[in-house]
Amino acid sequence: MPRSFVSIDELTNDEIEAVFQLADRFLDEMATSGKPFRIQGRCELAQEHILATIFHEPSTRTRLSFETAMLRMGGNIISCADARSSSSSKGETIADAVRVLENYADVIVIRHPFEGAARVASEYTDVPVINAGDGSHEHPTQTLCDLYTLRVARGDQQGKRGAEVLKDLNVVLRGDLQHGRTVHSLAYALARFGARILPDPAPGCGFPDHVRRRLARDYNCYPLNKKEIDELSDAAFPADVLYLTPEEPHQLALMPDVVDVWLRLSKKQQKAVRGIKSVDAFYATRLQLERLEPGEDVADYPAIDSEFLKQRRYRNSRVLHPLPRVDELSYDIDRDKRSIYFEQAAYGVPVRMALVAALLELEPSVLQNASPASSYAQYSHANGVRCSNKRCVTRQESEQRYLVSKYWIVDERDLTLRCAYCDYEQEVLVVSRASTHKYTTDVAHWRDIDSKDLVLFADEHDAVEAGYQAKKRQTRSARSAK
Amino acid sequence: MPRSFVSIDELTNDEIEAVFQLADRFLDEMATSGKPFRIQGRCELAQEHILATIFHEPSTRTRLSFETAMLRMGGNIISCADARSSSSSKGETIADAVRVLENYADVIVIRHPFEGAARVASEYTDVPVINAGDGSHEHPTQTLCDLYTLRVARGDQQGKRGAEVLKDLNVVLRGDLQHGRTVHSLAYALARFGARILPDPAPGCGFPDHVRRRLARDYNCYPLNKKEIDELSDAAFPADVLYLTPEEPHQLALMPDVVDVWLRLSKKQQKAVRGIKSVDAFYATRLQLERLEPGEDVADYPAIDSEFLKQRRYRNSRVLHPLPRVDELSYDIDRDKRSIYFEQAAYGVPVRMALVAALLELEPSVLQNASPASSYAQYSHANGVRCSNKRCVTRQESEQRYLVSKYWIVDERDLTLRCAYCDYEQEVLVVSRASTHKYTTDVAHWRDIDSKDLVLFADEHDAVEAGYQAKKRQTRSARSAK
Amino acid sequence: MPRSFVSIDELTNDEIEAVFQLADRFLDEMATSGKPFRIQGRCELAQEHILATIFHEPSTRTRLSFETAMLRMGGNIISCADARSSSSSKGETIADAVRVLENYADVIVIRHPFEGAARVASEYTDVPVINAGDGSHEHPTQTLCDLYTLRVARGDQQGKRGAEVLKDLNVVLRGDLQHGRTVHSLAYALARFGARILPDPAPGCGFPDHVRRRLARDYNCYPLNKKEIDELSDAAFPADVLYLTPEEPHQLALMPDVVDVWLRLSKKQQKAVRGIKSVDAFYATRLQLERLEPGEDVADYPAIDSEFLKQRRYRNSRVLHPLPRVDELSYDIDRDKRSIYFEQAAYGVPVRMALVAALLELEPSVLQNASPASSYAQYSHANGVRCSNKRCVTRQESEQRYLVSKYWIVDERDLTLRCAYCDYEQEVLVVSRASTHKYTTDVAHWRDIDSKDLVLFADEHDAVEAGYQAKKRQTRSARSAK
Repeated sequence: MPRSFVSIDELTNDEIEAVFQLADRFLDEMATSGKPFRIQGRCELAQEHILATIFHEPSTRTRLSFETAMLRMGGNIISCADARSSSSSKGETIADAVRVLENYADVIVIRHPFEGAARVASEYTDVPVINAGDGSHEHPTQTLCDLYTLRVARGDQQGKRGAEVLKDLNVVLRGDLQHGRTVHSLAYALARFGARILPDPAPGCGFPDHVRRRLARDYNCYPLNKKEIDELSDAAFPADVLYLTPEEPHQLALMPDVVDVWLRLSKKQQKAVRGIKSVDAFYATRLQLERLEPGEDVADYPAIDSEFLKQRRYRNSRVLHPLPRVDELSYDIDRDKRSIYFEQAAYGVPVRMALVAALLELEPSVLQNASPASSYAQYSHANGVRCSNKRCVTRQESEQRYLVSKYWIVDERDLTLRCAYCDYEQEVLVVSRASTHKYTTDVAHWRDIDSKDLVLFADEHDAVEAGYQAKKRQTRSARSAK
Repeated sequence: MPRSFVSIDELTNDEIEAVFQLADRFLDEMATSGKPFRIQGRCELAQEHILATIFHEPSTRTRLSFETAMLRMGGNIISCADARSSSSSKGETIADAVRVLENYADVIVIRHPFEGAARVASEYTDVPVINAGDGSHEHPTQTLCDLYTLRVARGDQQGKRGAEVLKDLNVVLRGDLQHGRTVHSLAYALARFGARILPDPAPGCGFPDHVRRRLARDYNCYPLNKKEIDELSDAAFPADVLYLTPEEPHQLALMPDVVDVWLRLSKKQQKAVRGIKSVDAFYATRLQLERLEPGEDVADYPAIDSEFLKQRRYRNSRVLHPLPRVDELSYDIDRDKRSIYFEQAAYGVPVRMALVAALLELEPSVLQNASPASSYAQYSHANGVRCSNKRCVTRQESEQRYLVSKYWIVDERDLTLRCAYCDYEQEVLVVSRASTHKYTTDVAHWRDIDSKDLVLFADEHDAVEAGYQAKKRQTRSARSAK
Repeated sequence: MPRSFVSIDELTNDEIEAVFQLADRFLDEMATSGKPFRIQGRCELAQEHILATIFHEPSTRTRLSFETAMLRMGGNIISCADARSSSSSKGETIADAVRVLENYADVIVIRHPFEGAARVASEYTDVPVINAGDGSHEHPTQTLCDLYTLRVARGDQQGKRGAEVLKDLNVVLRGDLQHGRTVHSLAYALARFGARILPDPAPGCGFPDHVRRRLARDYNCYPLNKKEIDELSDAAFPADVLYLTPEEPHQLALMPDVVDVWLRLSKKQQKAVRGIKSVDAFYATRLQLERLEPGEDVADYPAIDSEFLKQRRYRNSRVLHPLPRVDELSYDIDRDKRSIYFEQAAYGVPVRMALVAALLELEPSVLQNASPASSYAQYSHANGVRCSNKRCVTRQESEQRYLVSKYWIVDERDLTLRCAYCDYEQEVLVVSRASTHKYTTDVAHWRDIDSKDLVLFADEHDAVEAGYQAKKRQTRSARSAK
């Protein structure tokens, strides 16, 4: 099976660095003098290959940067810029679409409103799938470009290249941290590379629960709150919370709640946090208006302008933004040297060239042989729990024709599941046996049931609806009779 | 004039086989091991050429398969994926559109909601036009792919290639035989190659009249009904009707009705029909919801699932579908070896490569010098009969600026006309002279009128509206006076 | 900075001729025998380059002719055929869009509904921008194709090539001269090359004021009215007005009104006008329905048909049309040799090839080093006058985030400004000082104010709204007191 790139998790840190080094090489060989961030000309690396861009939501930037990346490598493009109005309007499913497309293209780039759509696509085709955004879920190639931009900026400062420059970076994530998929993928990636995340959300637009939980669970990245920070830090802090990744990943692995992070930090880390005075980078995002609920509104959206950047502690802070912007970045900082959002857009081309070349194996030994394996056990059953995320691909009528829910058991004690498609988490309250159609709310003993016979429900109501019955409680007399 | 491909009738059986042999060659040279149905890489056959895809109705599959076909031959693409919203919204006609496009592209692939639109396009340009679907009329390149898939599947069974393997094939056509254009073109093609057609339509979705009449008139393909079949056949039959093409094409040519087909079959044919026990292929189609009249609905749509395919007599039946499917093919047969609908989609590329190469004359001697000539006489006049099909291109306001109706006289005795654009048939009830503006309902003597002076009307009302007057009947006394 | 092509004024006459000679060469080398107007095959001139077509309004013809032009030169294409529904729907500005795109493409072709949009684009990017139509403003590449077509047609008659054949041509501009952007650019160009313009508009669809004023002011092109013409000319005249460009450009430069043009003509010119009997070309245009105000309608739209062309004085008149047509050109003249509108469409390819090659500097010495400089002084201030054209890019909410109005002072005496984006003109009635926030309606002395301190308003109301106060009039006593 070919490697796909559906989530930022599908590349190891080493692989990300290998992709970045290939992007470096493309820039070295193809950028012109004076614009070291811009690929020009054409090489012939992909001349035997076709890349398909299938966009069910509109996009200019992402689609065109993939197409340019492919063309600059001598490859060809087929494109469906408005896939909503074509086959899917005739009821075509994601699985069918990719099983047809794999005969037309050597790699498929897909954007889709259903969360988990790109994962489904990758499971049904034998060519690499690249996720160009699935609802509010992930947009991992944007994250690669973001990381690459930070890596170049920081590397230029430090006179070196390589992803290790990302370690200990202080990155403020600003604006809509709730709906913005780019910012979720980026947070995970920053945690993995050991950067510190300083969230500065618009009112009511903080990280959603599932992101916070995943930061903790998968990446050991925990928040210190403002009070804790203020006590520790000797400078006013540009965020209410600071996310930290302890150096020993496993020591916090099973913590249900975030409490005494500080105590678990090494001396060195404690010292580093105390010393945080500056912000290395602001990552600003626009309000994802199109993902708000009807009637929902956001006031006091945080903006960056030349006045803001005059603060001394920001004098070396880079400003990034995935673009397009609305009002959160003033045009008066466009010519400021710290503003690197247009270079960031430019890096979309070499980074996507490198990714496509890696997935198509046009360059040997960029990727390992297999995707990194998950450390969680999997649960799947045609009945039982359904994902609590209404925008999840498993909840869509068209896809339910063939798609069976699938979960990672991320907490074996409390029996918490994470949807393998959209990453929403939920607790299981009812455990049942498919063979007997009996259920119990005593979740603790779920391991006693053979995995093939195990059916899990979110609550009793769902279990009853699916035709399951509560296991009779043994009455006191019955038990004494024994 | 270049050859176009507007109707499956525009290629002779020999030419179809020549196109298929070229597709074979592309697969031999470019398919990778393990996926003999999939073209990969790029050859340089069409590197001097541009193909335009102009789609006035949405499509992913057809458009992208043409584009891939062209790119795999080293050619280039220009595309208008949503032509509705561009020039045609400013009132541009089909004739003008192609006369501009011929300066930009070497071959034009067009999909259009008006029935007969591709024919009009081909008449107004000096580059080849390929019909990628015109309303409910035809979709002949889909038919080529369908035939090629049957030919490969059957050929693999019989250890030989070549279109002769299509002869005597028993093909069940299932689902929406009324609105589905692919299934009409396929029926004609199957008849031409001597296959037997077993229609199994959804309730109320049988072949429309004009298709049945054309099957009979043009291809000598007549139905036996279930009762007749049951008497003859020694097995329960998977269809209510069986369409048969007699071996001697001319013996039934002028039959107005289908009655005693059986008596006209040769001994050998009678024997063959008696022996029909198995189905070689199911060709399933989705309900063409977008072509139903408002309020129209279809219940009990026939579906194929793994249970259905367990029947013994279907054990060697291939399952085809032009895709996208809705509910008529269960996902549980996707991995069944008999399911070849994804291969069928894959064959779209080599078959369209071969067709484009043939029309552009990139490969010599695939096509003959001229299109096969019609055996019918033509009738055309600015006044008179107008096509009875409301979706016919000749009925559209924009196209009436320049387009004059044109008909084939398919029945010279009953004076039945077939629209040269959309193939609808209608009887003529009024015959008139343009020079005198007199008409008569005595149709039998239409040949007495010189063809330049001949004007035909569907009924008296139309004739009167067009300013024609009834010829006075000679009264008995007047006649006696002579 | 690279050269862009936003307005026909950005190429000098010599440069236009150089572009045309390159187009000639492409046709000589690539057109096939029998179709000298049609480019075929592919050269490798642009194989290192990508052209982006970004269309915020639908188009087939213009977009595809650019794409074909690029592909025929071996280049590549990225395309956004419906840019409205992508990033700009998320609030992206023109400035941001091009600053991202410049990293993906080597040249940007943009169509946009905002008038002046392409100018804005060209100011914010370091790659060449080509205006493919900005509202009702300009469509300069269409004008190049129109001129080239006239040049070829006239040159063939006269046995020579070269733009000098455009001089003294009598060109009737017909139809919608009000909303049609192509016809505005063409009028300017015809004036520059010394052709005579004979407007024949549909009722109520004459040249708008700003076009008439620009013809006079910039190109010394003035109208004679019908009465004047009738007195001079010895033939019935096909237009009510005739626009003439005097041979000595500067003699009329500062004329506020058009009066006695005749007197200023040279003897030779007077003789030429007297001798006008024939029309060299009709340039017909469709009614720009999509640009009418709601409720607006146009009756008696002038049409050309075979009857019309039978008039003796039109026996050598060529018929051009930018297409698509509606009813203003009858289909019955399509085969008339004088009808050259399809050749005109064909010339779109070689002319656009030449333009792109010139802007990308693929061919040396087609263009001079710099754009021709304006002869007017510039005025710009964040406060003050705003453009009177509601469709001007400077009036759009999204663009006001960064865009400051900018004007050419086209009449220094009456202080008339022309918007540097959309070319609308307006008179200034109020002059003020930014430093004191005082204004006066005494416009005559505006030069007394230092240009950095100068703020201009259209009227007092606007000045007051912007927080400015009328300068107190010195009373008689106050003055005597001095």
